[in-house]
Amino acid sequence: MDEKLRNLIFVHAKKWVLEAGEEIRQSMYGDLSIETKSSPDDLVTSLDKQTERFLVHNIRESFPTHFILGEEGYGDDIESLEGTTWIIDPIDGTMNFVHQKKNFSISVGIYHDGQGEIGLVYDVMNDVLYQAKRGNGAYRNNELLPPLKKSLLLEESLVSMNHYWLCPNALVDVNKMQQFVKKVRGSRTIGSAALELAYLAEGSTDGYLSLSLMPWDIAAGMVLVQEVGGTVTNIKGHPLSLLGKDSLLACNKTIQRDIFPYLQK
Amino acid sequence: MDEKLRNLIFVHAKKWVLEAGEEIRQSMYGDLSIETKSSPDDLVTSLDKQTERFLVHNIRESFPTHFILGEEGYGDDIESLEGTTWIIDPIDGTMNFVHQKKNFSISVGIYHDGQGEIGLVYDVMNDVLYQAKRGNGAYRNNELLPPLKKSLLLEESLVSMNHYWLCPNALVDVNKMQQFVKKVRGSRTIGSAALELAYLAEGSTDGYLSLSLMPWDIAAGMVLVQEVGGTVTNIKGHPLSLLGKDSLLACNKTIQRDIFPYLQK
Repeated sequence: MDEKLRNLIFVHAKKWVLEAGEEIRQSMYGDLSIETKSSPDDLVTSLDKQTERFLVHNIRESFPTHFILGEEGYGDDIESLEGTTWIIDPIDGTMNFVHQKKNFSISVGIYHDGQGEIGLVYDVMNDVLYQAKRGNGAYRNNELLPPLKKSLLLEESLVSMNHYWLCPNALVDVNKMQQFVKKVRGSRTIGSAALELAYLAEGSTDGYLSLSLMPWDIAAGMVLVQEVGGTVTNIKGHPLSLLGKDSLLACNKTIQRDIFPYLQK
Repeated sequence: MDEKLRNLIFVHAKKWVLEAGEEIRQSMYGDLSIETKSSPDDLVTSLDKQTERFLVHNIRESFPTHFILGEEGYGDDIESLEGTTWIIDPIDGTMNFVHQKKNFSISVGIYHDGQGEIGLVYDVMNDVLYQAKRGNGAYRNNELLPPLKKSLLLEESLVSMNHYWLCPNALVDVNKMQQFVKKVRGSRTIGSAALELAYLAEGSTDGYLSLSLMPWDIAAGMVLVQEVGGTVTNIKGHPLSLLGKDSLLACNKTIQRDIFPYLQK
C-alpha cells in the first residue's frame, strides 16, 4: 500500500476509533440491553452493535471499495484478503465490559492484500490508544514503544494465557502446560485478546497464548506486535490466515523456540 | 476502636499512602536497583524498601504505641494482634511493578485487637485509592461502592485466581479445579492480591482465590471486601489469623457455599 494512502486511512481510522470510544464512555453507565448470544459466556450488548455500525457506516462512506470483516456481522462476507480489508472488533473483551466496565478495547486492523498495514487497539476506559502503521513503529498514545528485549529467558518471562490451557483440551497436553506455568516467571489473564497483544507490544508481558481466536480479536494487535519485533503465529508456528478461527502464540522472538515444546500434544 | 481515633488515624494513613504513591510515580522511571530475594520470582526493588521505611517512620512518629507488620521487615516482630497494628505491603504485585510498571498497589490495613478498622489499597499508576473504614462502607476514590449483588450464580461469576490452582498442589484436586474453571463464567489473573481484593470489592470480579498469601497481601483488601458485604476466609472457610501464611477464598457470600466443594482435596 502506498504510504500516502496508508496515512490517510490511518487518520480517519484513528478519528473514528476515538469517537467510538467517547460514545461508549458516555453511554456505558446507561441501560445496556444485554442479550446472550450462543452461550452465557458470549455476552453482547447493544453498544457492541452500535459501535460496529458506526465504524462500518464511516468506512463505507469514505472508502467504498474497502472490505470489512466485523464481529457483529455488519461487514462483508469475505473469502480472501485481496484488496483493503478492515478487520473490526467493536468491543473486544465483552465479558470485562459487562462485569468490570473496564479492560475492554476497540480493535481495528487494516490489511492490504493480506499484509497488516494499520493496527489500532483502544483501551477505552483508560483512554490509551495503541497504534501502529507498518514500518513506522508502534505507539502507546504518542509514546514510541521500544523494540522488544533482545535477550530474555523463558524463566524471566511473564506470559498471558487463560485457565483453559490447563484443562483437558484437543490442542495441548495439560501436563506440559503445567510445566510451562512453573517454568515462566509469571502468568496473567486479562480477558481481552486485543489488549493482551497491546500489553505484549508495550513489553508489559512477553507472550500471549490463546487456544482459539477469531480474526477480529487479533488483526490489530498483530500489527502492533510485529512493529516492535515480536512474532505472531498459531501454536504450530504457522502463519495465521485471518479468515477463520485459529490458535495463537504471540511472543518475544527470543523465547518462541523455547515455548513450542510445551505446546506439543 | 473509638470512631474519633479511627478517623484521625485514617486521615494520616491516607495522606501518607498518597504521598508514597506520588514518590513512586516520580522515581519509577529512574534506575531501580532490583535485587532478587529468595527466588527470581520474588523481586524486590529499592522502592519497596524506601516506601516501607517512609510509612514506618511516619507511623512511629505520630502513633508511637502502634505496632507494625511490614513485608520488608522494617516493622515489629509481632506474635499477636492485640492493640493497634498496621499491616503494610509497600508494593503489592512486585512482579507487575517490575515488568509492567502498572497493576501494583500500596496496601495498608489497620487492625485493633484483631479487628479490621481501616483498609487502603492504592492503585498507584491509575491514581485510584480504594478506601474503607469499618462500618462506613468502602470507596473507590470518593465514590461509595454499592453492596455486592444479592443474587448471583456461580456460572455467572468472574473469579480471580492464578494458574497454580491447576497444577498439582498440596491443597486441592486439580480435576476439581478444572471443573471449577469450566463452571464459572470467566477467570482472571491480575497479579496483585490487594488489587484483586479491591476488584472484588468494586464488583469487577465476584471472587478471588489464592493458595498462599501473607498477612500484608490481604489485610487492607479484607476490610474493603467486608465493607461491601463480601466474605473472606481460608479455603476451608475458617477465619484468617493474619499472623502467618494461609490460603484465601474471598467472594460474594452468595456463591461461597457453591465454591467450597471444588476446594476439597
